[in-house]
Amino acid sequence: MTDKKTTDSNIADNHKQRMQKLKEKVDSRIDNATDERGLLIVITGNGKGKSTSGFGTVARAVGHGLNAAVAQFIKGTWACGERQLLENAGVKFSVMGTGFTWNTQDKEKDIAAAKQVWIKCKELLSDTNLDVVLLDEMTYMLSYKYLDLDDVIETLNNRPKHQHVIITGRACHRAIIELADTVSEVQSIKHAFDNGIKAQKGIDW
Amino acid sequence: MTDKKTTDSNIADNHKQRMQKLKEKVDSRIDNATDERGLLIVITGNGKGKSTSGFGTVARAVGHGLNAAVAQFIKGTWACGERQLLENAGVKFSVMGTGFTWNTQDKEKDIAAAKQVWIKCKELLSDTNLDVVLLDEMTYMLSYKYLDLDDVIETLNNRPKHQHVIITGRACHRAIIELADTVSEVQSIKHAFDNGIKAQKGIDW
Repeated sequence: MTDKKTTDSNIADNHKQRMQKLKEKVDSRIDNATDERGLLIVITGNGKGKSTSGFGTVARAVGHGLNAAVAQFIKGTWACGERQLLENAGVKFSVMGTGFTWNTQDKEKDIAAAKQVWIKCKELLSDTNLDVVLLDEMTYMLSYKYLDLDDVIETLNNRPKHQHVIITGRACHRAIIELADTVSEVQSIKHAFDNGIKAQKGIDW
Repeated sequence: MTDKKTTDSNIADNHKQRMQKLKEKVDSRIDNATDERGLLIVITGNGKGKSTSGFGTVARAVGHGLNAAVAQFIKGTWACGERQLLENAGVKFSVMGTGFTWNTQDKEKDIAAAKQVWIKCKELLSDTNLDVVLLDEMTYMLSYKYLDLDDVIETLNNRPKHQHVIITGRACHRAIIELADTVSEVQSIKHAFDNGIKAQKGIDW
């Protein structure tokens, strides 16, 4: 019994020592991170969770009383749940509203619609009252060459210094990845859709 | 001029043909996806965006009028923006509230706190009124062996058939990945924190 107690006590001490070392390491990294400025965050890759991550960050920001706006490319022909909740919380949405390119099948129309949303984006990206701007599914506009890359980069570079921008979508252009402060790639390990599960309200839209 | 017009017209036709083929492919995949049931979704990996993706999905669900609840492991010693917004929208939170293990440095206390939250999780995972349950940062509770894996799997298997569950956190246990319908792995390509940028309100918490 005494032996068991001694062993338990040793395990607890070991845990405490490991955690103390880890705390020192974490604390020193926190001490070294002193800069505060608007970040460019990219969430790319083929997996599920990119847009929801962007919208989760908008929800986080708005919950803290920050001002946020959303521009949505591609999507927008049907009502997404997050839009209703966030609009109620004061988030403004600018929506391309054409649906997917394989639905419109009209390149010129898609380009015109993309350019319209981009004009709105430029307003958002020069608005000093906005703390967070989500450019949802914008990566496709660059890979399809619907928007001018140099114009996008210049606009991002000239935005208010405190403004955070989140760009989501597959296959983000390497120039935007280079420009970004934080980049996450969401990889699909498996997806219910591939096993015959249809897109469901509240999860997929 | 006529040649230029012919070329433009050819390009547009080609685009239309490609998009028609793509649409046929997408439509046939949609036709094959007919099942509807509660999904187990795992968002794992080392990159930024896992919890925000979980919270974005909760925002989406609540925006559609579905009922959602959140259990938060590890975190909870400070006010996250998303909690304020979602609680206002009727989402119930159960929070471990101990902070990170390197802060508590007390394994027994952490295990007791984890088990308390898990009791609450079991209530959520048997509540037929709940459409979506987010188990934020739960993966760590299994990798640290703070919770019993068999109990977790049995509880997930016995939940209401329509209930979606989202589990977030690094290094998800392979048994949970096998059980899941959709799994995304968020990889960190780069992170602002590594370049001396501190955690910022509205983005990191």
